[in-house]
Amino acid sequence: MKLVALAGGVGGAKLTDGLAQLLPPENLTIVVNTGDDFEHLGLYISPDLDTVCYTLAGLANPKTGWGRAGETYHLLESLAVLGGETWFRLGDKDLATHLERTRRLHAGETLSHITRLFCRAWGVRHTVLPMSDDSVRTMVETVKYGELSFQEYFVHQRCEPKVKGFRFVGIESARAAPGVLEAIEMADAVVLCPSNPWVSIDPILAVAGIRSALEKKKVVAVSPIIGGKTVKGPAAKMYSELGVRPSALAVAEHYSGLLTGFVMDQLDAKLAEEIPITTMVTDILMPTQDDRRRLAQDVLDLIRTL
Amino acid sequence: MKLVALAGGVGGAKLTDGLAQLLPPENLTIVVNTGDDFEHLGLYISPDLDTVCYTLAGLANPKTGWGRAGETYHLLESLAVLGGETWFRLGDKDLATHLERTRRLHAGETLSHITRLFCRAWGVRHTVLPMSDDSVRTMVETVKYGELSFQEYFVHQRCEPKVKGFRFVGIESARAAPGVLEAIEMADAVVLCPSNPWVSIDPILAVAGIRSALEKKKVVAVSPIIGGKTVKGPAAKMYSELGVRPSALAVAEHYSGLLTGFVMDQLDAKLAEEIPITTMVTDILMPTQDDRRRLAQDVLDLIRTL
Repeated sequence: MKLVALAGGVGGAKLTDGLAQLLPPENLTIVVNTGDDFEHLGLYISPDLDTVCYTLAGLANPKTGWGRAGETYHLLESLAVLGGETWFRLGDKDLATHLERTRRLHAGETLSHITRLFCRAWGVRHTVLPMSDDSVRTMVETVKYGELSFQEYFVHQRCEPKVKGFRFVGIESARAAPGVLEAIEMADAVVLCPSNPWVSIDPILAVAGIRSALEKKKVVAVSPIIGGKTVKGPAAKMYSELGVRPSALAVAEHYSGLLTGFVMDQLDAKLAEEIPITTMVTDILMPTQDDRRRLAQDVLDLIRTL
Repeated sequence: MKLVALAGGVGGAKLTDGLAQLLPPENLTIVVNTGDDFEHLGLYISPDLDTVCYTLAGLANPKTGWGRAGETYHLLESLAVLGGETWFRLGDKDLATHLERTRRLHAGETLSHITRLFCRAWGVRHTVLPMSDDSVRTMVETVKYGELSFQEYFVHQRCEPKVKGFRFVGIESARAAPGVLEAIEMADAVVLCPSNPWVSIDPILAVAGIRSALEKKKVVAVSPIIGGKTVKGPAAKMYSELGVRPSALAVAEHYSGLLTGFVMDQLDAKLAEEIPITTMVTDILMPTQDDRRRLAQDVLDLIRTL
């Protein structure tokens, strides 16, 4: 079975890691949100791409899910002495990624090319693609501060400001990165990973050509919400603030018209009958490596029934 | 006594540290070579400025004389995995300096302004000035490779290529940094630190207005050569390759017309009579903090007799 997975941060990285344990490299392409990308300290930072790549490479911090295992913060500590900005916690190993990526971007290389080189260097055998080589910047409209850049909202303001909506700056002119539409075209199915629908999956779906390519495919989403709460991140909070009761059902409705299958947690079993598409009820928490593979297997099993 | 010290790398940093132990902040201005500055990995690196500042701040690596004490190389190790350039050994703490300096330069701040901010952050109370805020790049003409940038020659090629001459690119349009000419004007004397005459002191002297400002002052040089050899770096090798027998005498002649006093090592005492200016013979090696202060005191004592 040939799959494409659309992924954002930690939850998406975990499920793609499970899928990568089950599918050979030629049968899995992972398309990653770049709406979170930003420039900081003069460096181009691509948080979701790095989280997915570090996870697949076995380099991710197992406690946080993002950043590097065995990370140190000596640069940041010295930067603090100089009065530099330290609200975005960049580790020494992680900074090598940003420094080399920035150098290569300035030399005219594309993000997808750089990602391919980095994956090769890290031993990631499955294909990881940024959704676009063009700049897309997720802006969060907040009640209190007006529009904030995503990382300003997410890290600096710790997701505290109440949100009113989102805007993906540059989305009109962003083209899908080379290989993205081709991989969807060739795929038997597309998986929407348990990432934030508003700010991880929606930006990918908004890139020209991606949503319409998905409409011709089996599409299965895995809920990032369990029992009305997110495992990590502000998705549930965003639903509430936007006037939608956060639930697996809300996620299924979020993607309505696009899904052929849906995967949600046992805790939400009673909502299954309200979802008008084939729905699998299983354990969708992924605290361990085995859980990643188990959930990926459930997703593959569901797809085979569609 | 008000002094200006012209300094390059490790030897210059040590003597300025000795002078800083003896003179109050308002009485010592250190003007540092920036001909060694270069861009690497997209970062603006100013090796001599950093060596002087780290030394004065007590942050320098006591073994090498350059770089930071207690340094780690986690970023560089991760960069090596990505195939990035690692021939210039940048430590994690040191990189914070380059990253923040580069960010500020790109934001339009001057090198002298940034140096002032960094010195304040590091607790350096004496004034440290780059020789110029304008770009000057020391090029080394070599027999084998033609012209090499200074760091390419110094670090990458380990000073192995035979030199034919030097060129300071940009020197014609480089203006002395704000405060440099004023400090020399106000000084009772100027000290040429035991730095490489060819590539540390000559670039400073070549900045418009500096040499002519020095001609009105007492100028004392401390030899970087002892017994025909340099304590550190390629100065002696450069003299040989350029057809001059390396010695304290060669250094005194290098600066001829500019000096009112000269300080050299006991090992070279027999050369003193060949030097036509007031010459102090003392122990000029500075292996310890105390030695730095002792040599600085000798220099002050000599200046008082001139």
